[in-house]
Amino acid sequence: MKLYGEAMPAPNPRRVRMFLAEKGLDIPEIRVNLRKGEHKAPEHRARNSLGQVPTLELDEGTCISETISICRYLEELHPEPPLFGRTAIERALIDMWVRRIEFQIMTPVGMFWRHAHPLTAALLTQYKDFGESNRELYARGLKWLDRELAGRDWIAGDSYTIADIALLSTVDFAAFTGLVIPEEAANIRAWHTRATARPSAQA
Amino acid sequence: MKLYGEAMPAPNPRRVRMFLAEKGLDIPEIRVNLRKGEHKAPEHRARNSLGQVPTLELDEGTCISETISICRYLEELHPEPPLFGRTAIERALIDMWVRRIEFQIMTPVGMFWRHAHPLTAALLTQYKDFGESNRELYARGLKWLDRELAGRDWIAGDSYTIADIALLSTVDFAAFTGLVIPEEAANIRAWHTRATARPSAQA
Repeated sequence: MKLYGEAMPAPNPRRVRMFLAEKGLDIPEIRVNLRKGEHKAPEHRARNSLGQVPTLELDEGTCISETISICRYLEELHPEPPLFGRTAIERALIDMWVRRIEFQIMTPVGMFWRHAHPLTAALLTQYKDFGESNRELYARGLKWLDRELAGRDWIAGDSYTIADIALLSTVDFAAFTGLVIPEEAANIRAWHTRATARPSAQA
Repeated sequence: MKLYGEAMPAPNPRRVRMFLAEKGLDIPEIRVNLRKGEHKAPEHRARNSLGQVPTLELDEGTCISETISICRYLEELHPEPPLFGRTAIERALIDMWVRRIEFQIMTPVGMFWRHAHPLTAALLTQYKDFGESNRELYARGLKWLDRELAGRDWIAGDSYTIADIALLSTVDFAAFTGLVIPEEAANIRAWHTRATARPSAQA
């Protein structure tokens, strides 16, 4: 099994690395150089026609892309510790939290990065006003999540899960782009300190 | 078990109804009236703090939101016919296809609807140029998917899955907003005819 990933700060390859660290797994990662455009080269497009990372290549040749799908596959092979839930209800709720983070928090960060950040301005046509409007959506998403987090340690309840991995990489990437956690989101700030203290956060 | 949904053309409640039809399941659906703002009322916010539909309320009181998470839960209770895959690899690849459809096809449709459609213009601040730019992203996404579909009947392979449900509701909602399947995407057009011929498409 081989993992095609990339160095920080790309949030998706980091998610898989954090997941592997939480599981105590070691899968060799080939660092695809995004700045050199290696992800758009024919060799990588044969693994993922969208030219994205991460992609997991199995020994029999099948390639699995999409961060959460890769982690979901690895969870089935290595169920302990469970990061996607132990029961049908837990699995549904953790899946719900991952999706809420992706649609409410990650999408505004992605749109800000894509349409308002100077580093992408050189490469792509931007709609700057739209891009800037995502600052407010990101802050609003985190304030909503802050209320949801009241009284619990982790996004989906008492245990650290893939939903925490999804949020930590998103918030850290957002900070890299210049988007900060709102001052008043005290539960998110405390959660961020807890999540960052785990060894997997270094991945 | 009760399902809070809504009438056509809202694509997410329809996805759950198509899933139930494919499974031969009957769960009572309470139609929340989005035009009257019933999804933002306190009673529904108690089920889903984001004020979205669909939400599945279990008899013991737990509420599961997010279309795919609801379907994933129902798949565990009623595994036949399998719509999320039978093996770990199948489940990972079907999950990958759902995500690709959401990020490559559904996101542009949602952004077009949100930022360029006259029906939402009355309700929300739009970034119209950005919204219009999603026509091209939608067409590009379908052309990519058209190449991927060559030689197979369904999105994830030989069997109809949740990925087909995700795409059918997206493409039909896109048509409602004025976005059409590109003329040259012959594989997508043939797939659309096949998917629409299934009784579940009437849901």
